[in-house]
Amino acid sequence: MSVFVNRIRSFFMVITDNLLSSLLTTRSHTEEICAPLQTEDYVVQPIVDVSPPKWHLGHTTWFFEEFILAKYKAGYTRFHDDFAYVFNSYYESIGKRVVRTNRGNLSRPTVSEVYEYRDYVTNSLHSFLEDVDDIEIRTLVEIGIHHEKQHQELLLTDIKFILGNNPLLPEYNATFEENPTVKLSSKYITIDEGLYQIGFKGDGFCYDNELGAHKVFIEKYSIAKSLVTNKEYLDFLSDRGYENSLLWHAEAWDWINSDNIKMPLYWHKVDGEYYQYTLRGLKKIDLNAPVTHISYYEAFAYAQWRGERLPTEFEWEAAQQFFDWGLRWEWTESAYLPYPNYAKAPGALGEYNGKFMVNQKVLRGGSVATPNNHTRPTYRNFFHPQLRWQFNGLRLVKNK
Amino acid sequence: MSVFVNRIRSFFMVITDNLLSSLLTTRSHTEEICAPLQTEDYVVQPIVDVSPPKWHLGHTTWFFEEFILAKYKAGYTRFHDDFAYVFNSYYESIGKRVVRTNRGNLSRPTVSEVYEYRDYVTNSLHSFLEDVDDIEIRTLVEIGIHHEKQHQELLLTDIKFILGNNPLLPEYNATFEENPTVKLSSKYITIDEGLYQIGFKGDGFCYDNELGAHKVFIEKYSIAKSLVTNKEYLDFLSDRGYENSLLWHAEAWDWINSDNIKMPLYWHKVDGEYYQYTLRGLKKIDLNAPVTHISYYEAFAYAQWRGERLPTEFEWEAAQQFFDWGLRWEWTESAYLPYPNYAKAPGALGEYNGKFMVNQKVLRGGSVATPNNHTRPTYRNFFHPQLRWQFNGLRLVKNK
Amino acid sequence: MSVFVNRIRSFFMVITDNLLSSLLTTRSHTEEICAPLQTEDYVVQPIVDVSPPKWHLGHTTWFFEEFILAKYKAGYTRFHDDFAYVFNSYYESIGKRVVRTNRGNLSRPTVSEVYEYRDYVTNSLHSFLEDVDDIEIRTLVEIGIHHEKQHQELLLTDIKFILGNNPLLPEYNATFEENPTVKLSSKYITIDEGLYQIGFKGDGFCYDNELGAHKVFIEKYSIAKSLVTNKEYLDFLSDRGYENSLLWHAEAWDWINSDNIKMPLYWHKVDGEYYQYTLRGLKKIDLNAPVTHISYYEAFAYAQWRGERLPTEFEWEAAQQFFDWGLRWEWTESAYLPYPNYAKAPGALGEYNGKFMVNQKVLRGGSVATPNNHTRPTYRNFFHPQLRWQFNGLRLVKNK
Amino acid sequence: MSVFVNRIRSFFMVITDNLLSSLLTTRSHTEEICAPLQTEDYVVQPIVDVSPPKWHLGHTTWFFEEFILAKYKAGYTRFHDDFAYVFNSYYESIGKRVVRTNRGNLSRPTVSEVYEYRDYVTNSLHSFLEDVDDIEIRTLVEIGIHHEKQHQELLLTDIKFILGNNPLLPEYNATFEENPTVKLSSKYITIDEGLYQIGFKGDGFCYDNELGAHKVFIEKYSIAKSLVTNKEYLDFLSDRGYENSLLWHAEAWDWINSDNIKMPLYWHKVDGEYYQYTLRGLKKIDLNAPVTHISYYEAFAYAQWRGERLPTEFEWEAAQQFFDWGLRWEWTESAYLPYPNYAKAPGALGEYNGKFMVNQKVLRGGSVATPNNHTRPTYRNFFHPQLRWQFNGLRLVKNK
Repeated sequence: MSVFVNRIRSFFMVITDNLLSSLLTTRSHTEEICAPLQTEDYVVQPIVDVSPPKWHLGHTTWFFEEFILAKYKAGYTRFHDDFAYVFNSYYESIGKRVVRTNRGNLSRPTVSEVYEYRDYVTNSLHSFLEDVDDIEIRTLVEIGIHHEKQHQELLLTDIKFILGNNPLLPEYNATFEENPTVKLSSKYITIDEGLYQIGFKGDGFCYDNELGAHKVFIEKYSIAKSLVTNKEYLDFLSDRGYENSLLWHAEAWDWINSDNIKMPLYWHKVDGEYYQYTLRGLKKIDLNAPVTHISYYEAFAYAQWRGERLPTEFEWEAAQQFFDWGLRWEWTESAYLPYPNYAKAPGALGEYNGKFMVNQKVLRGGSVATPNNHTRPTYRNFFHPQLRWQFNGLRLVKNK
Repeated sequence: MSVFVNRIRSFFMVITDNLLSSLLTTRSHTEEICAPLQTEDYVVQPIVDVSPPKWHLGHTTWFFEEFILAKYKAGYTRFHDDFAYVFNSYYESIGKRVVRTNRGNLSRPTVSEVYEYRDYVTNSLHSFLEDVDDIEIRTLVEIGIHHEKQHQELLLTDIKFILGNNPLLPEYNATFEENPTVKLSSKYITIDEGLYQIGFKGDGFCYDNELGAHKVFIEKYSIAKSLVTNKEYLDFLSDRGYENSLLWHAEAWDWINSDNIKMPLYWHKVDGEYYQYTLRGLKKIDLNAPVTHISYYEAFAYAQWRGERLPTEFEWEAAQQFFDWGLRWEWTESAYLPYPNYAKAPGALGEYNGKFMVNQKVLRGGSVATPNNHTRPTYRNFFHPQLRWQFNGLRLVKNK
Repeated sequence: MSVFVNRIRSFFMVITDNLLSSLLTTRSHTEEICAPLQTEDYVVQPIVDVSPPKWHLGHTTWFFEEFILAKYKAGYTRFHDDFAYVFNSYYESIGKRVVRTNRGNLSRPTVSEVYEYRDYVTNSLHSFLEDVDDIEIRTLVEIGIHHEKQHQELLLTDIKFILGNNPLLPEYNATFEENPTVKLSSKYITIDEGLYQIGFKGDGFCYDNELGAHKVFIEKYSIAKSLVTNKEYLDFLSDRGYENSLLWHAEAWDWINSDNIKMPLYWHKVDGEYYQYTLRGLKKIDLNAPVTHISYYEAFAYAQWRGERLPTEFEWEAAQQFFDWGLRWEWTESAYLPYPNYAKAPGALGEYNGKFMVNQKVLRGGSVATPNNHTRPTYRNFFHPQLRWQFNGLRLVKNK
Repeated sequence: MSVFVNRIRSFFMVITDNLLSSLLTTRSHTEEICAPLQTEDYVVQPIVDVSPPKWHLGHTTWFFEEFILAKYKAGYTRFHDDFAYVFNSYYESIGKRVVRTNRGNLSRPTVSEVYEYRDYVTNSLHSFLEDVDDIEIRTLVEIGIHHEKQHQELLLTDIKFILGNNPLLPEYNATFEENPTVKLSSKYITIDEGLYQIGFKGDGFCYDNELGAHKVFIEKYSIAKSLVTNKEYLDFLSDRGYENSLLWHAEAWDWINSDNIKMPLYWHKVDGEYYQYTLRGLKKIDLNAPVTHISYYEAFAYAQWRGERLPTEFEWEAAQQFFDWGLRWEWTESAYLPYPNYAKAPGALGEYNGKFMVNQKVLRGGSVATPNNHTRPTYRNFFHPQLRWQFNGLRLVKNK
């Protein structure tokens, strides 16, 4: 086992059982997410944060081609010479790429060419992996699987944006339940002050940003058992929360005024009643579902209005065993920063997480769009504070 | 014949023979232009000036539905209630619409739905027109036909931009010849000073902006028999014409610097040689073809460099019988302004031309992309001075 | 007399009597315009079109230094090496310069240094001209005088903007009457169709853009004896003219909506009554004064609403002897284009006019802010169609 | 003592000895900072982050008028009714205000009127305070003093930007030494892991963001005794640190490319040698002075290049007794976030700090521009990560 693998393995903890079957399941799940789409839905990019579905299909494929097949498979021929340019996302060290704002301008390669590309790479991996037990390569495959799972969630939220931004408000899938009714509880769990272990330890996969398990001293606090619901959030609207500058960060106040923000993303007020676009089409607001598609700014303002606050990511992690989570990514008060002893992986893989550690907030938990087995108590998701197209929500905290 | 018809007819001169056959031919020609496209090519909008092909298909259909079927056909049911919103282009007086910058964000309606919409409206018109000889309605149909022909040229130039902006530079059609070799001539035709009749007179269709035939006094001038060729334009590049501020308008100089303009649109310099993207794919520059895809600013700077100038639209019209035209839309020095006695048509049709009569330059002639029988000696095309994606070119004039 | 002078003289017609006295009067008049200012008023640039008064003071001085003293006066030492960089306006061929948007960021040179610079250059010119009767140099001095007079009007309108944009709305000068009551007349003067001589001919100074006198054929029209008044313009507001899209150019409609334009510049609606900021401070609208501080777009929309139109610059020139003018620069329908046979002066002076001949509209006449003897029947002023900070107004025309 | 005072005092810890003398000293020190300025220097705003000096003079005065005199002094008459509008900075809850981007467009009130305003308010406070021993009011005065001291540092850095951005590069003051030579040391101080007390405790003034002293667990680390010097930073330039994407955050990489950042602010490369604009004018780089005018992004990239990192604000605070500080504000890796138990002050004073707690980085220490007695070991300064016009620098940390 090479030194290189040791180093990679120290950044991304992995477990390698059933790697091939895990790979094939993941690859086909991505395609299942796209099954309800029309060809046209694969192409558009209504805002810069949203990528066209065919780009996700190609990019996750390029990742395997670039980092594994081209490097390790003898005699491997790339599917198409120009695809690296088209499907590289942000790896500056790998070469030129289509800038993110232009992904929606590309009609070619076509959707069926992208599916051919997927098949070609999946098949190449399949035959390649049957003969390989090099731990270095297997580690990279596992990283590729997790990378693709991350994109599965983005793919679904991007699809929702593409359809929900369309004036025809088409349905994606009649059975996808994004708004499960939750058992309401006004209970808070009290956690004592003390030193808590934070970060990933043990076996299984994790990202480099979770590593470096370390102790954090936390003061006593109480954290809500339930997520904030639509019903509760509507009270904030009724009380004109969006018009009270004292509840908002200065940058948030500028943002809601310049972008004319008055309610969560996908909400529509029609004849005095609130509706929300869901993956099943336009529906009346479901009062008992947890509020979602709000920015950090809105989560913060809501908490201010309640006289409470958001948890830090450490408070969340220390308490997460005492409540249910996974319906909404939960905004925390924590900025996305490196843990003590964090170090970037060498080379291009080092661009995976570290270079985003500024100006973003951490979200914890998971959501109705998160693939199976993709999240865990130490998982650190992160987005800019104004972004709303993920299934984001919030949970409140009180001091003592 | 109603007063209204008289008024409409006085704005748009028409001839109504074979109206139905003309309609059907036009409708299917639009679809033929799209035949080489992949579904994905119908959807994207790489720059604001370019519309997605499916938008052109829908918009030309909406025009017939909105201005004819919905108004005059008893019991007509619109194909879809929301399509007016999606496919209205700029008629403020007709209602809300998708803003132009967002057309490329819409994956729905799908391409096949748009084709169904086309068929529905074409068939409705077909059955409707068999029974109608009302001159008012027939006039509106003729306007609709010419409107669709205008969009056929835009459709082709938009398709060229969509494919030519793609890093894969796909071919549109192996047989479309956009760069015919022209018989070079250095001859100039001299036209004597005098009063010349300008504008449309007589039978047949024309737009309101050509009407109001009137006299213009023109001084003696000489106009080139040939368009400027790629070979001649390359001399301007070699002489560093793009770096000499004295040749350019102030706004042009800002534009070439901020947009890093160094050669015509679609030109690529590869290993010291010039290539151009054409509808047949990337080709070496054809030296004897007329230069194209240049802005007014570039045409003007080129003429300055030659010590000559562009013709006015009046000079062009007075001399056009003495030279061949129709390969390139020819930039003129004239601003797009109303002729004496110009008046807008009443209501929404009045938005057709008049409201664009500021900040644009007139182009005369026609191009390899202009549909048959769509242009004429009095036809006034117009674009903003920096735009290049039409098949634009130039012809020089000398004083005396 | 050198060939060069012949060429310069053919671009700028001049008369050289009393040149020195004319120079000195002009130089001191510029300073008189600034007399009511506080030091701070000389420095700011609230919008890109407005230059700081001290920049005007320096720039008109630099013009004499650069084009005359540095070239022709033996042993002349520039006042300061860096001032050419600071005070060049737009002469690309002369060298680098402070870009226009940054003029208001410069606190140095101070106002008193700029006055020292003025004195230094005026005195140098004074002593130099006593010994010079070279016609070439005297021609350049005359151009410099007219250049400075042009800046005098800009200086005054820029001062008005600087003070009128200040929340304290300070008075500039208690006696400056910008709103003379005009004798109202509803009369129109009818002008017969025919060939009219247009452009400058004869002695005296003119700019290159007026030269090339030529014949223009004009159809019969009637032109109003009076300018449109505030009272008349208020009727347009009352009739919701700013809300009726059919009256406006497409670009105008975008502009009034994005910039929230609802009335002329400097108008304020306070408790249901209209006020206007004037150089004498905030005053009630003077109903019988000619409307001013409107854009071409507003002038055009007003004319549309009246069912009339703006004159072309040729119609204006052909009729100007039959009405009074000089209170407001009168928007015409004409685009700012070269006359037949127009040619740019050689070198940097050629940048004076020609490079602005695109995307601008011609204004004719003069205004309450125009210096004595600075305008004439053939004078062609020009601005972009949305600009309003000059004393612009309009006069109506009817066909026949 | 009212409940309100208790609440205010719990947000801003104060000591009230010699309050009047402290007030008067502070007020005149602000004016001393401006003494070398020309009137024109008080007016301009070259970038949005920099305010015109006269705005600082007025704003610090308005703070006392608005929060103290207008509320507590019987019969107090405001100096001018419109000044609240002109000089309010960002207190949304206090009323309308000149938006920050427009401060440099205001020539009035003049500099001498602003000085009159200062005198009026200082004198009013003077007479008022002689009779007042109400602790609530005295607390507010102390807050006003500290507020003005904060602005003193901004005033000086804004003056530096105004002069250093001027092409004439004028000197501010021949004796101001901003680049003291530091005794170089390559030593690192090692701090053991443990629980450390963070935040303000005890007597004296502090801001609300320092309160809530609390324990933080820190792992073992070593922190440099010296700041990074110009000499050391030049090695980073020589090694093409600005061209190596792997050293930079993704947003930093976009920023250095779009803004063409290649060296610290105020550095100029002339004929192969580096110079820096200082308050004493343009000087050769002083190799042994600590590097300054760098952004967080540059500090981070430099540390990456060294294979080390920036301290967290907690590491800085725990170790600060072992090194000298106060020459440069030291960028930390910490985001500006509320301490546990942080709560905003009620009403407008609550806008002081809390609403900025997103997207900013904490700086610790102080600088050559910090007023006497204005900083302390717990002081938390904060700026956006790309800002460079403060006297910012960096100190390195190694793990273990």
